[in-house]
Amino acid sequence: LGYLGVYYKRNSQLFFRNLSDTEKQKLLEILKFKYREILLNYFANKHYLNQKIDEFTDTLFFTDIAISQVVEIHMELMDEFAKQLKIEGRNDEILLDYRLTLIDVMAHLCEMYRRSIPNESDIL
Amino acid sequence: LGYLGVYYKRNSQLFFRNLSDTEKQKLLEILKFKYREILLNYFANKHYLNQKIDEFTDTLFFTDIAISQVVEIHMELMDEFAKQLKIEGRNDEILLDYRLTLIDVMAHLCEMYRRSIPNESDIL
Repeated sequence: LGYLGVYYKRNSQLFFRNLSDTEKQKLLEILKFKYREILLNYFANKHYLNQKIDEFTDTLFFTDIAISQVVEIHMELMDEFAKQLKIEGRNDEILLDYRLTLIDVMAHLCEMYRRSIPNESDIL
Repeated sequence: LGYLGVYYKRNSQLFFRNLSDTEKQKLLEILKFKYREILLNYFANKHYLNQKIDEFTDTLFFTDIAISQVVEIHMELMDEFAKQLKIEGRNDEILLDYRLTLIDVMAHLCEMYRRSIPNESDIL
């Protein structure tokens, strides 16, 4: 319910598609940093994590970034983690568990968007 | 772009929360049936599948069903599949792969909702 009308406050100047190339690059770096932090803490610290996921999905929402871009950030980090695990000679099965993190983040974001669609009564 | 303005056409009488208990039950059964079909074909028939996923996410969108309910349908089916695999004495590792299906469906749905939020220019 807290989301109702949130979209009115979105500033399209902050939308990913309206950023300069440098700003886009910067935003993607920030998102990747934040998401990496979420992944690395996902199975450890649930309380701290909910807040981090909220912050992350808020950023995704307010920058109106395409969902495919979020999936891409996930894939990039999985590649990096896989390389690191290989160097350390460790099994990369844990990477399958991180799909749960992506599902969690996406459910969160999707619900946020769902609740931001105005009711018919708001429009008419 | 095809999604623009789609939400105007959503009929709130079809929203999950506005259905009778019997209708809710019926809808959940249909969704579960459709999602099961998607899961079982997910790694086999990509072409046929995209259409099925479109149909499924359309239904989710037009019934404005909570995302948690979608995750629940996934979990219920995973439980059923796990039991079946156990009976057949087979390994249930494949169930981890089905997380990709959920991610795919959710990305699809989330993008649909994202594109349905009116632009500022549509409102002002």
